[in-house]
Amino acid sequence: MSEVARGEPAWIVDGRRWIEAALASVLPAASERPSRLHEAMRYALLGGGKRLRPALVRLLCTELGGSEAAALQPALAIELVHTYSLVHDDLPAMDDDTLRRGRPTVHVAFDEATAILVGDALLTLAFECLAGESGERAGALAGVLARAAGSQGMVGGQVLDLALEAGGAADDLDALEDMHRRKTAALFEAAAEMGAIAAGRDAATRASAAAFGRALGLLFQAVDDLLDVLSDAATLGKTPGKDAVLERATLVRALGLDGARERAAELAERTRSRARELGFGPGAPAFELAEHVLRRSS
Amino acid sequence: MSEVARGEPAWIVDGRRWIEAALASVLPAASERPSRLHEAMRYALLGGGKRLRPALVRLLCTELGGSEAAALQPALAIELVHTYSLVHDDLPAMDDDTLRRGRPTVHVAFDEATAILVGDALLTLAFECLAGESGERAGALAGVLARAAGSQGMVGGQVLDLALEAGGAADDLDALEDMHRRKTAALFEAAAEMGAIAAGRDAATRASAAAFGRALGLLFQAVDDLLDVLSDAATLGKTPGKDAVLERATLVRALGLDGARERAAELAERTRSRARELGFGPGAPAFELAEHVLRRSS
Repeated sequence: MSEVARGEPAWIVDGRRWIEAALASVLPAASERPSRLHEAMRYALLGGGKRLRPALVRLLCTELGGSEAAALQPALAIELVHTYSLVHDDLPAMDDDTLRRGRPTVHVAFDEATAILVGDALLTLAFECLAGESGERAGALAGVLARAAGSQGMVGGQVLDLALEAGGAADDLDALEDMHRRKTAALFEAAAEMGAIAAGRDAATRASAAAFGRALGLLFQAVDDLLDVLSDAATLGKTPGKDAVLERATLVRALGLDGARERAAELAERTRSRARELGFGPGAPAFELAEHVLRRSS
Repeated sequence: MSEVARGEPAWIVDGRRWIEAALASVLPAASERPSRLHEAMRYALLGGGKRLRPALVRLLCTELGGSEAAALQPALAIELVHTYSLVHDDLPAMDDDTLRRGRPTVHVAFDEATAILVGDALLTLAFECLAGESGERAGALAGVLARAAGSQGMVGGQVLDLALEAGGAADDLDALEDMHRRKTAALFEAAAEMGAIAAGRDAATRASAAAFGRALGLLFQAVDDLLDVLSDAATLGKTPGKDAVLERATLVRALGLDGARERAAELAERTRSRARELGFGPGAPAFELAEHVLRRSS
């Protein structure tokens, strides 16, 4: 898979190892009743993935002066929310995808009812993770995550995505970027802001972290649109070329391949600029991340 | 509808009025983008309902010395979670219901993708409501709600319900009551415990409140099973007799009609006993509630 390519920054590899171990233990054992549900939750959550969002929580928290331990519950929560959204997005009534991270999607490997309930349970567990945080922190983290994931964030973005496909306005750039802001960037924004909260930083730093995460999320989505055109299934771990077949709204469709590449380069520049505002210059992991994400598409 | 029958206790009527006003304002306006999603969320949440769970949060909070205002966010959260669970349970892949509270279900009135996303957004909003509570309270409330709603609570109960139907063990009383404990009673338990938390009470009172809620929830489900056999659609507001047609696991199926009535009477007695342990004797609303719920079935 592209995300384990050579040249991946050490903090992403370390962040992935760190969160993988924690993800396995945050879920009830498959032997716990109802075992089929818990088995399916483990299948959905432990089947690989870049784990970029939890790594981002950890990076921002530690680079802003917090401990790795302080980042753990928010990192778990954000990966649980991300995974639930994939499970639901893949459903027949939504994107109807059969392949995810190189394996059958949850509703294919199990069944549709189980996939709906797996998503519901993962989303709920995310907030259970945050509930145990001490003092004011539990509420602050839950508020950021809920606003990012809800009807005006990620869920709203999925609705706009489905509407763009159905409505044929798939080349409207403003509508497309509004959708990307909600569907993808909102969760990156939350990951970065949760890192700043976990580090105990003030509202100004939280806002700067959020702006950095938002730019990074838009970049990530732009690269994702490019990868769908440029990759094969083995590299991508999911069905490639599907955006075009389904007439999905993508940057490539709205701007053409070269236009989408230019837009990705602009977003990389914006991401670096936001990293600088947060105090991270060239050489700092948060600054170099833009280049790493951009390189995935070339 | 049965729940507005004469003889309904004043605190249930008052609690319903109180929460209805708050529910309308907790949701984004239907004009807010994505407007179709917000319209569907309003359709799902504002279409009537007994509002017994939020009324219970309010009752426990105020009877245990807290203010009505302190009960508001937990009451909103529990009704949002209850409503999301109805929207998802009604989906074609689950119970495939077309009628709810006397109106077409969300996936019928809108579409399946929208219904899935409405449920996701309502669940997320529930935790956003709790996130704004002050100090340690946000985390305590979110923890109780998440555990009640998650894979070992309500979502797990729905899985067990679907498995009981599919597996033909629908007359196994132990499996049935385990399912009822999770699917229905867990949320009543959470409602009562959240009331105690909102009132600022200690762990012992919280535990007693939870035990009262659990008994009440089992009683409520037993009566629900009886109502499906005894009511007509106009009274029930949803398709009656469906349990039998679908060979659903119900108390009536496991015990027969008389046996199920006896069991409901036992559960009413247990509920009164738990109310007494919590300090509420005859004449107190929490004590008299058992009789009110039981009366629905006769």
